[in-house]
Amino acid sequence: MTFQLHPKLREDTHLITTAADCQVLLMDDARFPWLVLVPQVPDITELYELGEQQQQHTYRAILRISEALARHTQADKMNVAALGNQVPQLHIHIIARYRTDAAWPGPVWGVGQVKRYTATELERTKNALVTILPS
Amino acid sequence: MTFQLHPKLREDTHLITTAADCQVLLMDDARFPWLVLVPQVPDITELYELGEQQQQHTYRAILRISEALARHTQADKMNVAALGNQVPQLHIHIIARYRTDAAWPGPVWGVGQVKRYTATELERTKNALVTILPS
Repeated sequence: MTFQLHPKLREDTHLITTAADCQVLLMDDARFPWLVLVPQVPDITELYELGEQQQQHTYRAILRISEALARHTQADKMNVAALGNQVPQLHIHIIARYRTDAAWPGPVWGVGQVKRYTATELERTKNALVTILPS
Repeated sequence: MTFQLHPKLREDTHLITTAADCQVLLMDDARFPWLVLVPQVPDITELYELGEQQQQHTYRAILRISEALARHTQADKMNVAALGNQVPQLHIHIIARYRTDAAWPGPVWGVGQVKRYTATELERTKNALVTILPS
């Protein structure tokens, strides 16, 4: 079986890079600096279902990406979460949060209306992220 | 500096056990099988701030506890999250979710009214958890 990104993730995100056998995606919601990490392993829904080596790679990627995003965005707090209630394919949210953002202090999921990036914003954001993220 | 559990966590949870230098707490909300893992490290708010060894211990504890809780509860999905927007002390939520639960498919935080365990329920739940959790 080969890995294929879940259609809902393909629809809602943009690929930034791959790191440690994970796809690093940008959530298409300009309200929050919001990345989604997807280990390229077919048919996995829980973190503990990853193989030993892939667990290590994934955890390292989570830490490195969240630290890099925190520094780049000067976030007040990072949110890191593997939920998957709506999209079962294992994916980890890494979100930079501000005390002034649209959902603070609650979680971001399901809050208000998604604000898609404009083409210009998307280009600028992707370029900046490629520079700061570990590869 | 010594580690002290944040007062809000002390108020909202019950200690079940310690594993890999982390406190394993039961959230006092009988609507969800909900554990909170707190690395016993003072003054830490982000996963990437843990030392190398503590990172490994914490990640291993997250995986082992979430797998054990998933099996014990026959959950439809596990939710694992480090948020900390309201309680900055680093803590990781490990929550067993059901398609029939009070918040599905949304996240559990801030949904509806907390339903505290009765003394009998608490005793029974703690005893069951001590048996199934890794130490």
